[in-house]
Amino acid sequence: MSDAVGSAKPETGGIANPPVIILIEPQLGDNIGKAARAMLNCGLVDLRLVRPRDGWPNERATANASGADIVIDNTKVFEREEDALADLNRVYVTTARTRDAIKPVFTPKGLAPEMRNVISRGEKVGVMFGPERTGVRNEHIAMGDAVVTVPLNPGFTSLNLAQAVLLIGYEWWQAGVDVPDYQMMMNDTFPATKDDMERLFVHLEAELDASGFFRVEEKRPNMQRNIRNIFNRANLTHQEVQTLRGMIVAMRGGKYKSKD
Amino acid sequence: MSDAVGSAKPETGGIANPPVIILIEPQLGDNIGKAARAMLNCGLVDLRLVRPRDGWPNERATANASGADIVIDNTKVFEREEDALADLNRVYVTTARTRDAIKPVFTPKGLAPEMRNVISRGEKVGVMFGPERTGVRNEHIAMGDAVVTVPLNPGFTSLNLAQAVLLIGYEWWQAGVDVPDYQMMMNDTFPATKDDMERLFVHLEAELDASGFFRVEEKRPNMQRNIRNIFNRANLTHQEVQTLRGMIVAMRGGKYKSKD
Repeated sequence: MSDAVGSAKPETGGIANPPVIILIEPQLGDNIGKAARAMLNCGLVDLRLVRPRDGWPNERATANASGADIVIDNTKVFEREEDALADLNRVYVTTARTRDAIKPVFTPKGLAPEMRNVISRGEKVGVMFGPERTGVRNEHIAMGDAVVTVPLNPGFTSLNLAQAVLLIGYEWWQAGVDVPDYQMMMNDTFPATKDDMERLFVHLEAELDASGFFRVEEKRPNMQRNIRNIFNRANLTHQEVQTLRGMIVAMRGGKYKSKD
Repeated sequence: MSDAVGSAKPETGGIANPPVIILIEPQLGDNIGKAARAMLNCGLVDLRLVRPRDGWPNERATANASGADIVIDNTKVFEREEDALADLNRVYVTTARTRDAIKPVFTPKGLAPEMRNVISRGEKVGVMFGPERTGVRNEHIAMGDAVVTVPLNPGFTSLNLAQAVLLIGYEWWQAGVDVPDYQMMMNDTFPATKDDMERLFVHLEAELDASGFFRVEEKRPNMQRNIRNIFNRANLTHQEVQTLRGMIVAMRGGKYKSKD
């Protein structure tokens, strides 16, 4: 049990103790900063560096964090992996390839609910990222409880550090939000009712009749159906129906006043 | 219907006609290159630039693509958005915030199966990304069939260009692969059978008996259960059971020969 369970800050999406991100031997400050930015995008705020090449603090990291100061200012630096992991109950190690170790393997999508379960029991978890060029070494794999591998184009799997951090964080955040995968942006209006649509069609057909559009009587039923299909498919709003009726009136030389 | 449905290249994960990525007014070549790298990570190969600030080709883009040459070499440049989109049947526009438009809104996760459905009908689709600092303008939203928004920490939603491209591509790729979210890395061995485990326990308990470990007879059943729980929980492999039995033999001063 960690004693670090504190108040849930808003920037973490209400989670008191979100996963810690541990970067082993990171090189360019640019990449550390971009990783920090990706972390805050996803409600992760606890960054730890083991033997950063260019020391710490690092101006390039701050510049590339693009305002994720809360992450940069609280970043901790360690000389040894063991010290960076000491207070964690569970550690997951990211790796691009299978190893000589018997370990559970998660995708980022599978890891997210796993971490949320473990954290809900009061445990503290971390995700470890290896050196940028070489990835984690077998000694790092041995420090972890499980590994994480992102399913990607098998011919081109190499992710940069910030992008690997982003994918772990992205799935972490998605597992905690309840946004529908598809919705209609409605902008203070409402979908048209079937009555709105029927009035539109009656209006339109009357004006088409008056203007001589339905020349061949036997084709009328089919043409009416086609026209109704066009507008039904458009998922119109109430306001858009009024706009269309205004267009009809204008084209017929009149002035439309909404009566609905 | 696009006439560009050609042979499915292996780098696209077997999809003949994967989504096109359109970047409007991209600035730093670094970011274009990183976006190209993220695309190839996810099986996307068709990149189009509208009014890139620093022209094209761009050395920084090539360097930052880290080997995604197939994307860089085939990148096309356009002066007008309309020309970049001309051969596409459906266009999705990424945006960080809601707009004054009545549009369907997808998450990246919802967009992936939508695009796969549309592509399977032979249509050609693209995803448009706006200028880096400002994002897309309302005129761009109007060019699209729907918008895409990534659910992220509401206090810090700003993604850099390559990271936004990565998240769209990541979900695109995930929707086409069938990797279990959790599996056990087995390294050419097999999970132990219950018979392996039973032989281990009988062996261990016999040697614990012989060494006087079960001093208090009434505690024996409980202690045996606890010990069995420890090893059952470890999900041992057949090989690991042999290793443990070898350890028992060694600690008792003998030499273990596997008979199983």
